[in-house]
Amino acid sequence: MISFDIVLLWLDLIGVFFFAVSGSLLAARKQFDFVGSILLASIAALGGGVIRDIVINAGPPIAFTNPAYLAPPLLAALLVYYLFSSVQRFTSLLTLFDAGGLALFCITGTLKAISAGMNPVAAILLGVTTGVGGGLLRDITANEIPTLFNNRDIYALPAFVGAGLTTLLWHLGLFSGLTACVIAGVVFTFRVTAWRRGWYVPLAVRGWHRAGTGGGAISGARD
Amino acid sequence: MISFDIVLLWLDLIGVFFFAVSGSLLAARKQFDFVGSILLASIAALGGGVIRDIVINAGPPIAFTNPAYLAPPLLAALLVYYLFSSVQRFTSLLTLFDAGGLALFCITGTLKAISAGMNPVAAILLGVTTGVGGGLLRDITANEIPTLFNNRDIYALPAFVGAGLTTLLWHLGLFSGLTACVIAGVVFTFRVTAWRRGWYVPLAVRGWHRAGTGGGAISGARD
Amino acid sequence: MISFDIVLLWLDLIGVFFFAVSGSLLAARKQFDFVGSILLASIAALGGGVIRDIVINAGPPIAFTNPAYLAPPLLAALLVYYLFSSVQRFTSLLTLFDAGGLALFCITGTLKAISAGMNPVAAILLGVTTGVGGGLLRDITANEIPTLFNNRDIYALPAFVGAGLTTLLWHLGLFSGLTACVIAGVVFTFRVTAWRRGWYVPLAVRGWHRAGTGGGAISGARD
Repeated sequence: MISFDIVLLWLDLIGVFFFAVSGSLLAARKQFDFVGSILLASIAALGGGVIRDIVINAGPPIAFTNPAYLAPPLLAALLVYYLFSSVQRFTSLLTLFDAGGLALFCITGTLKAISAGMNPVAAILLGVTTGVGGGLLRDITANEIPTLFNNRDIYALPAFVGAGLTTLLWHLGLFSGLTACVIAGVVFTFRVTAWRRGWYVPLAVRGWHRAGTGGGAISGARD
Repeated sequence: MISFDIVLLWLDLIGVFFFAVSGSLLAARKQFDFVGSILLASIAALGGGVIRDIVINAGPPIAFTNPAYLAPPLLAALLVYYLFSSVQRFTSLLTLFDAGGLALFCITGTLKAISAGMNPVAAILLGVTTGVGGGLLRDITANEIPTLFNNRDIYALPAFVGAGLTTLLWHLGLFSGLTACVIAGVVFTFRVTAWRRGWYVPLAVRGWHRAGTGGGAISGARD
Repeated sequence: MISFDIVLLWLDLIGVFFFAVSGSLLAARKQFDFVGSILLASIAALGGGVIRDIVINAGPPIAFTNPAYLAPPLLAALLVYYLFSSVQRFTSLLTLFDAGGLALFCITGTLKAISAGMNPVAAILLGVTTGVGGGLLRDITANEIPTLFNNRDIYALPAFVGAGLTTLLWHLGLFSGLTACVIAGVVFTFRVTAWRRGWYVPLAVRGWHRAGTGGGAISGARD
């Protein structure tokens, strides 16, 4: 029988791979070189988990101690190097891989915080931080306005939903490999649907509107 | 009788609120949405303390473990959402709230470092880091040149004064709620006066002058 | 007889000084003021080591606890303030000092990781992180595209070579003050030669070329 820790490790590594691809794709768009592609893949893929492990404060981050975490960024940089010229739909691909990483990381981050004995609110916060942290570091490092703050998209809310559901199901004793997949599916679908259909939340000040849009909140299709 | 820890917690929470408002105001100016406003408020408000707690290395940062620290960013984002359209003096407000946070954080950051057993120099450094860290992360995240490096303003010096006075009075046995308020007043007044009167320090190279100004150092009024 | 720890401390402090000068030079170019020059020197000089110590997670970072680490940034800011107007070759100087810091930090960072009991792969990663971290934080803080991702230069590879050689020689029992100097010389020479001769690695996507260049990889002189 497969242990829970092994499942968690694999979910985490798949999330690492998804974010690594998003980093290499951004490196390609920014015309970085191949070494820069590996580095930006590593920052995107491992940054959220490193912040999580530093906050939990229980020894060196797993990204440094377990060499398995280095394989996904290398693989991602190679895939983008060899395959990207034939798959040019850059923004869509980046968003889909980023959403996959977000869906897995808000779950694994929350679980690691719970395992470390943190309270439910802290576990949710840390799950969200793990989910959005790598993408935030990726965008800051590449000198872009972070996707997290792009007002045309809903990005942090799906992470909150995922971290909240994980914490809830855990404390109800209902968390399992199956429910983890359901949560990941919900988060991924929420994020991608919001992106495709142009859902958004109101601006930071009541009564202000987006430039070039006349619509209300949570409505309208992406132009 | 109110314990010293309670006073310290409240001073810290008020500082958190001040920086949170500065974050939400910047989110408003950058046209971020309401969720982005909460997130930038959280980064500005909690970033300095999280860095401080990670450096002290004595368990997870308090911003993650004590849910009370989440209230100020939510409150700040709501206040800016409902009230800002009627109070449009953006830059002044942001600078005043930022100065309030700076004044309180350089004190509470220094005290936490002293409590953790760090030496006086480390306590001053950590107080300054706590004071300027949140604003620095806020500006970097929002892709702005950090206020800390804006050469028209004196920003870090007041934090050094506050952290230095706190360390000095503590080691003389004169630190109390009253002297804490005096220090906060000195730091706030120094920062705001420097901003209003356009005080500045020389540029990084001797003999170089600011574009468009002919004046010497620490002189001249804001145009 | 001089102990190994003393040699390591001095190598580290000299690396700190080199990166501090690079920070003050960038502050000069960005027209920051003298306080900003001290702060950017500190971020460039101490940032990599602070990240390293936080990742190792064995107490507060040495940059906070040992006041000796504050001297190099102050000295660097003073030197740039008084001497820079007569030495105007900005980019060359910054690159040379940055390369010196890189050469020393990838060695000392690796050694500290080994001393902390981390595995060889983690030691190499942490050496590279220490070497490139300060410069990365310096460039992000100053709102520049990081040198690390500048596709005209080879920057991370020399750090990998230095960290790899340090780990290898250590485990072979051949690491000494002499071999440390040899490694530092190799890293510095590799980095500076790559910069002067315009060596580069391929872009992140196969078949894509740099704007304005027709050449292959690792060839051609800087125009």
